[in-house]
Amino acid sequence: MMTVTLYDFWRSSAAYRLRVAFGLLGIDYHSVVVDLPSEQNRAPAHLARNPQGLVPAVEIDGMMMTQSLAILEYLDETRGAGFLPSDAVGRARVRTLSYAIAMEIHPVCNVSVAKFAVAHSGGGITMESWMETFVGRGLAAYEALLDHPATGRFCHGDQVTMADICLIPQVYNARRWGVDISLHRRINAIMAELEEIPAVAAAHPDRHNSKG
Amino acid sequence: MMTVTLYDFWRSSAAYRLRVAFGLLGIDYHSVVVDLPSEQNRAPAHLARNPQGLVPAVEIDGMMMTQSLAILEYLDETRGAGFLPSDAVGRARVRTLSYAIAMEIHPVCNVSVAKFAVAHSGGGITMESWMETFVGRGLAAYEALLDHPATGRFCHGDQVTMADICLIPQVYNARRWGVDISLHRRINAIMAELEEIPAVAAAHPDRHNSKG
Repeated sequence: MMTVTLYDFWRSSAAYRLRVAFGLLGIDYHSVVVDLPSEQNRAPAHLARNPQGLVPAVEIDGMMMTQSLAILEYLDETRGAGFLPSDAVGRARVRTLSYAIAMEIHPVCNVSVAKFAVAHSGGGITMESWMETFVGRGLAAYEALLDHPATGRFCHGDQVTMADICLIPQVYNARRWGVDISLHRRINAIMAELEEIPAVAAAHPDRHNSKG
Repeated sequence: MMTVTLYDFWRSSAAYRLRVAFGLLGIDYHSVVVDLPSEQNRAPAHLARNPQGLVPAVEIDGMMMTQSLAILEYLDETRGAGFLPSDAVGRARVRTLSYAIAMEIHPVCNVSVAKFAVAHSGGGITMESWMETFVGRGLAAYEALLDHPATGRFCHGDQVTMADICLIPQVYNARRWGVDISLHRRINAIMAELEEIPAVAAAHPDRHNSKG
């Protein structure tokens, strides 16, 4: 099989999702660092990979792919990954959970968006207040969505799905910014299960910090 | 077939996507207005439908569903909607395009997020400057993504897909906030094709303004 290349940055939540996914699938990938603090993502070489200037990008099956959830769905379809359940209703629930993080929290809390808000607020907004507001309310809603009979050991049943793959980096980010999620019983129970999985532990940003 | 109920608000981009989808599929739905300016979306009745407090929510097939893209995928799977192509590579491209709007632009420009930034910025941020920044850069990237051999009359080939269904409300929002998209040749050509479709025209916010 051809080499898979992940254009990666250790702290990118979206890249972290793919490190988890590749690990779960046992896909041995080649990693190329795109350093976000020095804006390598805005350089022509990276814009040629992804006109959005975002990480991750993935070279796989002879194509350059972008958008982590589109890649997770592609891996599910082409590798039988099981990241989505086999029934349409279950798939809809896993997508709803995934989007509750990947659409409602992650983009708003993207560092470039938060930095723009901070930079133009004259001190009225800090990185911490921004994260507290949007990660806080987003994960509170996520906890409520988990109050559902289909929740199991993981977000949907007893198998790791795309919803868990979205949750892992979001909880990392909540911790990074000091957002208190201690009362979210279901999220914490699921995270404890997830952190037992070697592929999940191996994908943690601290293991991929190019400065580390 | 059971009635489909759309919990709708005329200016919600995500609800607008579903009005387009139901129209394209010829699904006759019952509309219930959830008035966002008076915060009916935060009322217990709506939080019971969607703990995230967002519109749309859809009652369909005996379930309450949320997250517009999860619902579009569900309609594709259960109604043969054709909103996603039949090949995995095409599906990945349509999802990438859809997420470039639904993840990268729409949540950041959600009115509640923009209002929070404006309210805490002491005049440094206005609704217009926020929208100009994030809709502007997002649609510029979208135009670049359309520079691809698979782009056709519509965003992917010659059939309306989820990518077009995401584009329509985003262009409405760009116009609403005065973001100049006149130089985005591909977006404008596709929008001109889309606006010819009766179901697309019928879903326009001006036709659903409860105050209108």
